[in-house]
Amino acid sequence: MSGRLSVIGLGPGDARYLTQEAIESLEAASAIYGYGPYLDRVPARQGQSRHASDNREEHERASAALRHAADGANVAIVSGGDPGVFAMAASVCEEIEAGPTAWRMLDVAMVPGITAMLAAAAHAGAPLGHDFCALSLSDNLKPWELIERRLDAAAAAGFVIALYNPVSKARPWQLSHAFALLGRKLPVTVPVIFSRAVGRPDESLTVTTLADAGDMPANMATLIIVGSAETRVIPREGKTPLVYTPRAAAKVMA
Amino acid sequence: MSGRLSVIGLGPGDARYLTQEAIESLEAASAIYGYGPYLDRVPARQGQSRHASDNREEHERASAALRHAADGANVAIVSGGDPGVFAMAASVCEEIEAGPTAWRMLDVAMVPGITAMLAAAAHAGAPLGHDFCALSLSDNLKPWELIERRLDAAAAAGFVIALYNPVSKARPWQLSHAFALLGRKLPVTVPVIFSRAVGRPDESLTVTTLADAGDMPANMATLIIVGSAETRVIPREGKTPLVYTPRAAAKVMA
Repeated sequence: MSGRLSVIGLGPGDARYLTQEAIESLEAASAIYGYGPYLDRVPARQGQSRHASDNREEHERASAALRHAADGANVAIVSGGDPGVFAMAASVCEEIEAGPTAWRMLDVAMVPGITAMLAAAAHAGAPLGHDFCALSLSDNLKPWELIERRLDAAAAAGFVIALYNPVSKARPWQLSHAFALLGRKLPVTVPVIFSRAVGRPDESLTVTTLADAGDMPANMATLIIVGSAETRVIPREGKTPLVYTPRAAAKVMA
Repeated sequence: MSGRLSVIGLGPGDARYLTQEAIESLEAASAIYGYGPYLDRVPARQGQSRHASDNREEHERASAALRHAADGANVAIVSGGDPGVFAMAASVCEEIEAGPTAWRMLDVAMVPGITAMLAAAAHAGAPLGHDFCALSLSDNLKPWELIERRLDAAAAAGFVIALYNPVSKARPWQLSHAFALLGRKLPVTVPVIFSRAVGRPDESLTVTTLADAGDMPANMATLIIVGSAETRVIPREGKTPLVYTPRAAAKVMA
């Protein structure tokens, strides 16, 4: 079987985050699948077919692309950020495991990308400079109690916490619950970064504290980084402050 | 003050992981600072000065680059992987906070890169497809008890765990202690990925289990990913298995 499937991370927002490998993989593909807005970020090429689908249709998209690759084509699926972080790579693996044995013999390549957490951290300074975790706040695919347990554990152990998928129309209360819960484990002075639409023309960055984080607007395009007790803020006149977590941690917390 | 300092992530290993932003920032710099092997990855350009330093000299490198930028130059520091993940961006922030006030007025830009964890995960499949954490096993800059506490917390809460800096000549026993500790919280069948020299010509990937992980060779160029109880392995005839963590997590663990 000569088929190939690449799952390509485009990074967040515009083309500046594209890697050489992503560019080459996109050029080599004869068919590209993806959520419409991600597909729109890839310039059209002659002889390359395009297959847009909706946001919630990960499984259908993955299986359609796998079937296409199993026919011998060089197929790409595009993903925002990194395909391996709350994105398409896991969906593709799920379909391969559940699908025909022939799919396991396909040449499958995940092409990493800049995930939103790394781009947001870079804009803020170096908040992920020490141990950190990444957690999706969506309880569509896991029970809310598990999210609470992970927030508790991460805060108590001193990890900086990057929150993906913080809010959606169907999940309006989860983020403020998360901040309230973190406020019981962490000083309320801990820095919190709201990175909105990172990499897009309307991107913005706000640095606040855990005490005030509940009042900040957020949506599915927001990536939130909650500092640890060690995270520091450097004020700068006329500029956004720099936020960073030192590489050294001296304290063992209670 | 017209000086500018960019802290640029080169990604792990070769040029395929370079982003457009990294390429443009490298071209625009009049001086480049970095650990020798990272600097060697950047082609020389006419009119661009190069300043190599040793691995352990992060602070000296950061302050030298900041002084140079404060003189009005466009200076770049290069970092492997992502500069914000256990790398130079936090050192630069530390120096800015401790240094002269004028350094706060510099134009400072962190340029994100593919961190080793994302490249290693992409080669393995999608082990970071669900909640995960990144932890440095080096106790040079934090007490070993804090590392144990974080390993415990992360495993008990079901995070997949990426281990940076697993072993060095000065730290020979920490990794096997970490595996023993994780074995008390996790099933010994949990998949463990050893990614060596990712992105370099001699890169290799091994998938084993927590039971056997202690017998695997590792060094400072190894990135280790310890799965959660939900992480799955898809065997493939004649190919490395695919390892992934499903996006859905049904269980709340005890």
